[in-house]
Amino acid sequence: MSHQNGFHVAVVGATGAVGQQMIQTLMKENFPIRELTLLSSARSAGKKVDINGREYTVQEAKPESFEGVNIALFSAGGSVSKELAPEAAKRGAICVDNTSAFRMDTDIPLVVPEVNEKDLFEHNGIIANPNCSTIQMVVALEPIRQKFGLKKIIVSTYQAVSGSGAAAVEELLQQTKAILNEESYEPQILPVKSDKKHYQIAFNAIPQIDKFQENGYTYEEMKMINETKKIMHLPELQVSATCVRLPVAVGHSESVYFEIEEDNVSAAEIKALLKDAPGVILQDDPENQVYPMPADCVGKNEVFVGRIRNDIDNSKGFHMWVVSDNLLKGAAWNSVQIAQRLVELGLVK
Amino acid sequence: MSHQNGFHVAVVGATGAVGQQMIQTLMKENFPIRELTLLSSARSAGKKVDINGREYTVQEAKPESFEGVNIALFSAGGSVSKELAPEAAKRGAICVDNTSAFRMDTDIPLVVPEVNEKDLFEHNGIIANPNCSTIQMVVALEPIRQKFGLKKIIVSTYQAVSGSGAAAVEELLQQTKAILNEESYEPQILPVKSDKKHYQIAFNAIPQIDKFQENGYTYEEMKMINETKKIMHLPELQVSATCVRLPVAVGHSESVYFEIEEDNVSAAEIKALLKDAPGVILQDDPENQVYPMPADCVGKNEVFVGRIRNDIDNSKGFHMWVVSDNLLKGAAWNSVQIAQRLVELGLVK
Repeated sequence: MSHQNGFHVAVVGATGAVGQQMIQTLMKENFPIRELTLLSSARSAGKKVDINGREYTVQEAKPESFEGVNIALFSAGGSVSKELAPEAAKRGAICVDNTSAFRMDTDIPLVVPEVNEKDLFEHNGIIANPNCSTIQMVVALEPIRQKFGLKKIIVSTYQAVSGSGAAAVEELLQQTKAILNEESYEPQILPVKSDKKHYQIAFNAIPQIDKFQENGYTYEEMKMINETKKIMHLPELQVSATCVRLPVAVGHSESVYFEIEEDNVSAAEIKALLKDAPGVILQDDPENQVYPMPADCVGKNEVFVGRIRNDIDNSKGFHMWVVSDNLLKGAAWNSVQIAQRLVELGLVK
Repeated sequence: MSHQNGFHVAVVGATGAVGQQMIQTLMKENFPIRELTLLSSARSAGKKVDINGREYTVQEAKPESFEGVNIALFSAGGSVSKELAPEAAKRGAICVDNTSAFRMDTDIPLVVPEVNEKDLFEHNGIIANPNCSTIQMVVALEPIRQKFGLKKIIVSTYQAVSGSGAAAVEELLQQTKAILNEESYEPQILPVKSDKKHYQIAFNAIPQIDKFQENGYTYEEMKMINETKKIMHLPELQVSATCVRLPVAVGHSESVYFEIEEDNVSAAEIKALLKDAPGVILQDDPENQVYPMPADCVGKNEVFVGRIRNDIDNSKGFHMWVVSDNLLKGAAWNSVQIAQRLVELGLVK
């Protein structure tokens, strides 16, 4: 089939926080779209969405919805992806899935284009988009791995509430207002909507993102650990993570300690490397108080890196501070970027 | 001199955020006070302070102010301490200094009572109170060091704005209101009042606390590194720190990775140890979402520890989450506690 008029693209979860960003990103990046189908759960079906002055009606996602679709971007929760991505693939669509449904499946590529674009060639109709906190970290670490090798990572995250969806952002704002006005409030969403207890996020920090596993780590932490190894093709890499939710609407930050294989590497060499790395913007000038912050990264596709310095004791150890818009590079932009690369590599049927 | 009627106590910096907490803590702990002298800079002198229904007038701190004073608690900035603590000591007062003026002086003890109370015996009239972020970390680590040895620490902090004083808290609140009301605002205090640039703290995270040193670390980070070694008497301990300011009014949190000397120690053993450790409250029950948070620690003297777990790769490595009220155990309470111990050990003349 010729695609000279563009592609038939479907967005599944079109009314959600990430789905909305996906649509905006497709437009902003001038993705070659012939036809756009917006899909959602039955609950949101029928909603109208305005895109560049044209009104679209969101339809309920069903297996038949994917007839004729070339590329389907999924962000409607793991169960929807589990059910419908194989149906879409069966009908010839190539699926980019932003949920955790398939990420650790051995026959599904888990892709960050700056890191492992070549894995796209191994797809069987579904490509998984990694977890937001994982993506920005591997973009910053991959150039370092390529040049100096990578042995160990210890990361502590500072994550925005939009990672829990639009309702969590609303909870942060309403709760903040209530506290400033000395009114009462009842936490209902964070840290995890489906978990037993909910806690104040305004003017607080919650060391729980996603539910806990038996080993004392949260699923979010285990995602960072397992996905990093898979994306970087480093099964032996040592990775540990502590994931923390902050009263920030958009923009994840990460304090990353890493150990490289090579010795006698300076922080200046790491900075020089990241200055020219794909998808990275180096903001590292302590003397002039230049470093990345979540408030500055909102709406930008890149991963911002700063505060790069040698560990005090370990000559192979370094610290850095990595910030990115969790809805863009952490989700919508990485998905659209995968779609772009699929097109450019001729992988879309 | 008999102290059966209590001691003459002076608080220097009585109108500041920590000074106010010191006065409240002296009262709350029923510190044996015969006479209380409130001192400040010339700028704040003359202010009236109400304590338990009695009105005190704050006086300008001068060398003569310390005549007859038994115990002086300093929290009015490093330059005030540098000038006046030696004058107070010369006049027979024992000084507990909450600034960084003397912390790294080899002949000045740097004391956290739960860790190195015995160093109080080495005092020469001045005892330094450590940096807030250091105190809570060493309280949690000392029982571990005693039983299993301690080799390495990598800490990332999540610090409250009250560490920068009452005006910084006001800036956080006013800025938050402005953003919620879509009004403009001009950051003027954070991250460091005396530094060149000021950044938004509301709904943001700033990876700078105190100014930068030439090695790329901030003074706050170097305080954590150097003070930890001094307090724990472990000059060879490996410590690295990344210090980050959050939109939280009170309560510092820390993501602490540490490596012990002994092998085959379980997270359960670390938990059992901290459950009975002095000054520590263990809040560690992931299944029931029990872990420390800054919003819960406000107004409490203890250090709260949770999320204790083995590192995924290193059998001698562990992670934990440490939270405390930075104005209390991090400042006022640790100072008053030092004063208490000085009295109990018969060290006050």
